[in-house]
Amino acid sequence: MENRQIVLAERPRGLIDASTTTLVTTPRPVPGAGEALIKVGLLSIDPTIRTWMDDAPGYMPAIQLGEVVRSGGTGVVVESKTPHLEVGDVVFGMTGWQEWVIASDTNRFAILPKGLGLDLATVMNVLGVTGITAYFGVLDVGQLKEGDVVVVSGAAGATGSVAGQVAKARGAKKVVGIAGGAQKCVEVVERYGFDECLDYREAHLRRRLRAACPEGVDLYFDNVGGVVLDDVLANLAMRARIVLCGAISQYNATERHGLENTASLITRRARMEGFLVFDYTHRYDEARAALAVMVATGELRHQEHVVSGLEHAPDALNLLFRGENHGKTLVSVDESVLLG
Amino acid sequence: MENRQIVLAERPRGLIDASTTTLVTTPRPVPGAGEALIKVGLLSIDPTIRTWMDDAPGYMPAIQLGEVVRSGGTGVVVESKTPHLEVGDVVFGMTGWQEWVIASDTNRFAILPKGLGLDLATVMNVLGVTGITAYFGVLDVGQLKEGDVVVVSGAAGATGSVAGQVAKARGAKKVVGIAGGAQKCVEVVERYGFDECLDYREAHLRRRLRAACPEGVDLYFDNVGGVVLDDVLANLAMRARIVLCGAISQYNATERHGLENTASLITRRARMEGFLVFDYTHRYDEARAALAVMVATGELRHQEHVVSGLEHAPDALNLLFRGENHGKTLVSVDESVLLG
Repeated sequence: MENRQIVLAERPRGLIDASTTTLVTTPRPVPGAGEALIKVGLLSIDPTIRTWMDDAPGYMPAIQLGEVVRSGGTGVVVESKTPHLEVGDVVFGMTGWQEWVIASDTNRFAILPKGLGLDLATVMNVLGVTGITAYFGVLDVGQLKEGDVVVVSGAAGATGSVAGQVAKARGAKKVVGIAGGAQKCVEVVERYGFDECLDYREAHLRRRLRAACPEGVDLYFDNVGGVVLDDVLANLAMRARIVLCGAISQYNATERHGLENTASLITRRARMEGFLVFDYTHRYDEARAALAVMVATGELRHQEHVVSGLEHAPDALNLLFRGENHGKTLVSVDESVLLG
Repeated sequence: MENRQIVLAERPRGLIDASTTTLVTTPRPVPGAGEALIKVGLLSIDPTIRTWMDDAPGYMPAIQLGEVVRSGGTGVVVESKTPHLEVGDVVFGMTGWQEWVIASDTNRFAILPKGLGLDLATVMNVLGVTGITAYFGVLDVGQLKEGDVVVVSGAAGATGSVAGQVAKARGAKKVVGIAGGAQKCVEVVERYGFDECLDYREAHLRRRLRAACPEGVDLYFDNVGGVVLDDVLANLAMRARIVLCGAISQYNATERHGLENTASLITRRARMEGFLVFDYTHRYDEARAALAVMVATGELRHQEHVVSGLEHAPDALNLLFRGENHGKTLVSVDESVLLG
């Protein structure tokens, strides 16, 4: 009747390490009236978790020292004292890095759609927050237009790979990825069907971008920020749209990169806009339906990188910042629950 | 029958100086078929002229060495071989820094509206490109909403002073200016009716902005770029809009300021967008009509800073970058033509 939990022990500088988190064992929580007990199955490992570990103002409060590390995840309802959830429901919500969690009015869980014929890892990737982010980022914030030249950074990642495929499926003339390393670039083109992929670790990205997009970039879906964003800013087409989804290059940085090329927003009459997928919760079903169809028809390829064991969640998070993950990173806390 | 002209002699680094331009005398030009001869009256001295002197890609080609310095201005038609213009018409267009200019198919001039009861300096300021820029920047690009907290930099300048007054007249809850020096700040509040004005030359602008806008900035009209823009980025309200009109702090800078706080665009779901007034030429009349009414009713206060003599145009341009102008800067090349 225990609950293993990973709590924040120390605020990290740069990458997290052994002193950042501690594995603790507490009693398994008991649901009260209006609550339900959830056995956690899979954790969604997203770059934004790293930003919550800093003691800095963001779109959510910082994780407090001693608090369970905040994280999205899925699980199964095993005991329910609320009419909203039934035993056996597979749910998604903020599970945190732990084995058991209570669903309540202040920590709500959504029941995942059934009968899609998709395994849970796929659902958490393409139909989860990652895929939905890509969908609204490209179509709604980015206002993709027929014939657009689209560039996506973090193109081998969970969000970037979906963003490029959605753009291509919805009328982009050309989709160019940016990723780290030759192997990922091959994957972006061969697995995800991008027209081209540039390795940002090689020299002269700005020049190579110009060669790949000689008429400029119409829509840039940015997952990385920093120098790569600056290089794209130097290559904008008229009325370009830059969608700021994330800035993974900056989350661990002890010194921020100052953007030097924003003057091009004036000369190109361009727009740079940030967004968070949580603003679209009322439209998640619309995105899920569209993405499920794309998966079913084979138009949307995806890949999950599953790390086994709650205790490896911190290492799984670092995979993202080292660029060592392939596709959506998940941690399986208890596979048996979800497969059985 | 001469034409005094100021030509670009050398590309400047930083502020322009005596070696940047040369005053030359050439024969007065003769209009051909379909052309007209214009006697130049007033030059519009705008920060953007400085950007055209650099050999860098922008929204217009760079001025070539030996070429007349490009500039907006007004004049009177004195000879016409085109049905579009009549002798006596007062026109606005790209006159350049010279006494005489030819209107042609490749250098078109617009006839200024008559019977507004406004003097020409007023027309060139409030009803000219400066005022129209402020109008569309606030209402169209900035999408001003009732109850917005608005911040305007370069608030004592020709565009900024109009931008703040338009915002106030159209429903802003509070309008805060940013200007250089105590005297200008007094002017911004007392003459132009801003609620408050912050002197960016004093320390802790970021903190003072937060005190002036405790719920954050909804709409920022930016004329200056650089550090001031970064400080506003650190003080955004949710769904803030940043209108990039100019970046006067950067035009003479030999080292650009790298923007460090653009991550707030994500956490605040905010938008930063550049524009050029030339994209609105088809809607100039709409803006002119609205602005003329505001001038007539006394709702829109304005001020012109007129420097006499073509030969002083380079000094007049530097006034802008030294922050020594008060209101719209104009150079009178030949007042008699325009007043007579």
